[in-house]
Amino acid sequence: MNILLTNDDGIHARGLWVLKEALDDRYAVTVVAPDSEQSAIGHAITLNLPLLLNRIDRNGKGIGYSVSGTPADCVKLAVQELLPDRPDMVISGINPGPNVGINLHYSGTVSAAKEAALLGIPAIAVSINSREGHLETAARFIRNLADFVCKEGLPEGTFLNVNIPDVERIEGVRVTKQGISGLSESFSRRIDPRSRTYFWQGSQTQFFDHDKATDGHALSRNLVSITPVRCDMTDYDQMKRLKSFEQIFSSLT
Amino acid sequence: MNILLTNDDGIHARGLWVLKEALDDRYAVTVVAPDSEQSAIGHAITLNLPLLLNRIDRNGKGIGYSVSGTPADCVKLAVQELLPDRPDMVISGINPGPNVGINLHYSGTVSAAKEAALLGIPAIAVSINSREGHLETAARFIRNLADFVCKEGLPEGTFLNVNIPDVERIEGVRVTKQGISGLSESFSRRIDPRSRTYFWQGSQTQFFDHDKATDGHALSRNLVSITPVRCDMTDYDQMKRLKSFEQIFSSLT
Repeated sequence: MNILLTNDDGIHARGLWVLKEALDDRYAVTVVAPDSEQSAIGHAITLNLPLLLNRIDRNGKGIGYSVSGTPADCVKLAVQELLPDRPDMVISGINPGPNVGINLHYSGTVSAAKEAALLGIPAIAVSINSREGHLETAARFIRNLADFVCKEGLPEGTFLNVNIPDVERIEGVRVTKQGISGLSESFSRRIDPRSRTYFWQGSQTQFFDHDKATDGHALSRNLVSITPVRCDMTDYDQMKRLKSFEQIFSSLT
Repeated sequence: MNILLTNDDGIHARGLWVLKEALDDRYAVTVVAPDSEQSAIGHAITLNLPLLLNRIDRNGKGIGYSVSGTPADCVKLAVQELLPDRPDMVISGINPGPNVGINLHYSGTVSAAKEAALLGIPAIAVSINSREGHLETAARFIRNLADFVCKEGLPEGTFLNVNIPDVERIEGVRVTKQGISGLSESFSRRIDPRSRTYFWQGSQTQFFDHDKATDGHALSRNLVSITPVRCDMTDYDQMKRLKSFEQIFSSLT
């Protein structure tokens, strides 16, 4: 089985290599990752610049590429141009810091897995709830989860978003939904040397969610959260409701 | 009623100003838009650079700002720092070119409306099926749709993605779902003057979809498509199925 491994923290991130080592035991792993950090890049793709490559070698053997693009670019380019065979699975991570709740929309880690799902390839996004920490524990869990996904499969257009607590030994796992609580966001307003106002966007690490079924709540209890995420964003309940207004809409011209 | 108007094509795009003129009749409109083109930027936000502003004046009156960031940055910054009052609605567009099917994931236009929905504000993303064309017809339709949304409201966490055919007179409207057909994508492989390989990502304008319920199919028939889009990406069917594996997952450590 062939696994494509990527991330949004760039080719040098420790989480990527710890995960590769755990996966190498059982899978043929190719790394195609951004050449620089791409946090909060969402599902951006690069249309106005060319994509440059660097081949990555370990012990004299090519094991992948770094790409001057986004995580979604890496997945597209790997699948369509770089890999000799279509990968059986795409794994994105390990991201240092949680990707739960509305942060799924901003996360490059999650969007790489989403891109794979759009291409019809089973995918897992994985994050750990710390900057540094028990990456080996997280990597071992993901290797075992990859075995499960290989065996059971995933429906087309759906991938798994996994968040792992920073613990030496995993105590339990919850299948969760994405939290939708807002973040307590803020901007820092400053004045530059030319007296112009500018803003820094605050980073948001809040993940607690009062709703017990959510990813954030599970993680706050030191449990692994696994959320199945759908690429089809249609709100089918609203679609049904709005259908009854179709005549009215047609008169709005 | 206050409307925040933004886009992903930047402050100078014609679609933005044609839409503003149509909305000015009935609403107090403030423009906060990127200072440069941000197509295919997805839901990226800017964490590693400061956000700079330029005040936009028309006839000596301040009507908004351009921002050195992404469409999602513009919405966040406008709501949290720039506008004196929380807007009653956010409209993003008019994007020159369709935003249907899986392109919703890449679109900055759509992500601006999604950011508004995440902040609890009713929102509409709007695109027209041409580079230049009948923008006035599209703008008039959106003004009338805004009236409808003001009156009827939208459920929290759901916004409308609207695609308008390039026609002089709108012939009909369909409430649609997001198409999930893959695109026929490609990269162009080239060699630079230093003999290194690089790639251009092809742009994909394909929007036809065989599934008659989709946004792309409606647009291909010269009908307006209105898709209700949900910010909660959880696949609830899969969540139910995976719940039965929770014990197995807990043993994967």
